Amino acid sequence: MQKVPKYYKISTEIISSIRDGALKPGMRVPSENEIIKEYKVSNTTARKILQQIENAGWVTRVKGKGTFVRRANVERSVNKILGFTQNMQEAGYQPRTKLLDAREVFEGYGARLNGREYSMTGPVFKIHRLRFADSIPMMVEVRYIALSLCPDIKDFDFTASLYDMYEQEYGHQLTEINQVLSTTMIDSALGNFFDIRDPIPAFRVESATFCGKGMILEMEDSIYRGDKYRFSVRALPERSNAS
Amino acid sequence: MQKVPKYYKISTEIISSIRDGALKPGMRVPSENEIIKEYKVSNTTARKILQQIENAGWVTRVKGKGTFVRRANVERSVNKILGFTQNMQEAGYQPRTKLLDAREVFEGYGARLNGREYSMTGPVFKIHRLRFADSIPMMVEVRYIALSLCPDIKDFDFTASLYDMYEQEYGHQLTEINQVLSTTMIDSALGNFFDIRDPIPAFRVESATFCGKGMILEMEDSIYRGDKYRFSVRALPERSNAS
Repeated sequence: MQKVPKYYKISTEIISSIRDGALKPGMRVPSENEIIKEYKVSNTTARKILQQIENAGWVTRVKGKGTFVRRANVERSVNKILGFTQNMQEAGYQPRTKLLDAREVFEGYGARLNGREYSMTGPVFKIHRLRFADSIPMMVEVRYIALSLCPDIKDFDFTASLYDMYEQEYGHQLTEINQVLSTTMIDSALGNFFDIRDPIPAFRVESATFCGKGMILEMEDSIYRGDKYRFSVRALPERSNAS
Repeated sequence: MQKVPKYYKISTEIISSIRDGALKPGMRVPSENEIIKEYKVSNTTARKILQQIENAGWVTRVKGKGTFVRRANVERSVNKILGFTQNMQEAGYQPRTKLLDAREVFEGYGARLNGREYSMTGPVFKIHRLRFADSIPMMVEVRYIALSLCPDIKDFDFTASLYDMYEQEYGHQLTEINQVLSTTMIDSALGNFFDIRDPIPAFRVESATFCGKGMILEMEDSIYRGDKYRFSVRALPERSNAS
């Protein structure tokens, strides 16, 4: 068995107490001196431990005041094809999913994105889910899936990653997602999902996901809470941006 | 002189009355029959006129009710390098700029974007502007410009496009913009700029713009009103996304 370095073991331990809620957002984590005394390590190791926790994004250092647990915040890179599951895992959270509704919609679905009309002829399969980072509700999503491309979809586990299902079960390669971001408010009705009392601003993300030669595999209309999410995008000169 | 087609002349005329405010958002534009009578054109031409206005994004057709002037809305493609000026022109608006402040900041500027610290050593040049589409205030921007890359910048016209200035006056090629979008509220203080009384959600855009070999040319911290802007992003598989 490979030996796990001491600093790594201790930083993982402190991160665990943040994740399970023993250390809450805004609380101070042990200082360098406290770590030295409590874990009987050198000051180099203590410094490495705090650095590790900070690099992983769990805490912020405030000069002259100490190191504090950050509020859960997730960066989402919107010019990569990246599912919620993978996004949460990379941010160090356990993704969880609550299925709210799943059923066939005979009329199909359509939306205008970026000045163009996208439509899916019915029947499509509609999945409505609430998605969590550890125990924090992060986003509510509604996805409309082409039944012609995903037959028997109703037999799958809808609490898992749909992207994984498309690729592994149906062999579809995602080729592009056209997304439109707008702002909205999370108020009374949506607030219940998110366990939020006072209205907060949020992102609305509408999208069309393509596979193969420009076939619409799914369309989405989701709400990402604005107090937890930041979207990052790289812009490049037009020529390098072409696919 | 080339002859302008009739349908084009008339659709431009109707668009003008939307732009100058004679036809306001939510108002009905003339129906096919009204256009036939008023302009003495065929029903094919009348249909083409309405189609033209709709395609240009000025109106929405509501089945069985008529065609209505849309609220000014701008799509901004965030994975292209695209300045406000060009973005507005492409959307059919006249870009206007009000300079709020322009001065040297000796301390420099820095921000954490997408988990990385970006900083510009001082002095930098700070430009604070309010930017309009026709007469509608669309966004408030603060930009910090590297004086080492743009000497004598204080002599330029700050109501024009900075991107044009970088390229044409200084010969800088923009190579990449790292942007982070978050949500915020436009309330009392900012509301005055935008002429808005009730709070509305908005996008906050923070970015670092690079030229040449990874040099920071400018950093930005701007507020785009959420009732007017939608941001569009294409996501591609990782390999085609690399620059």
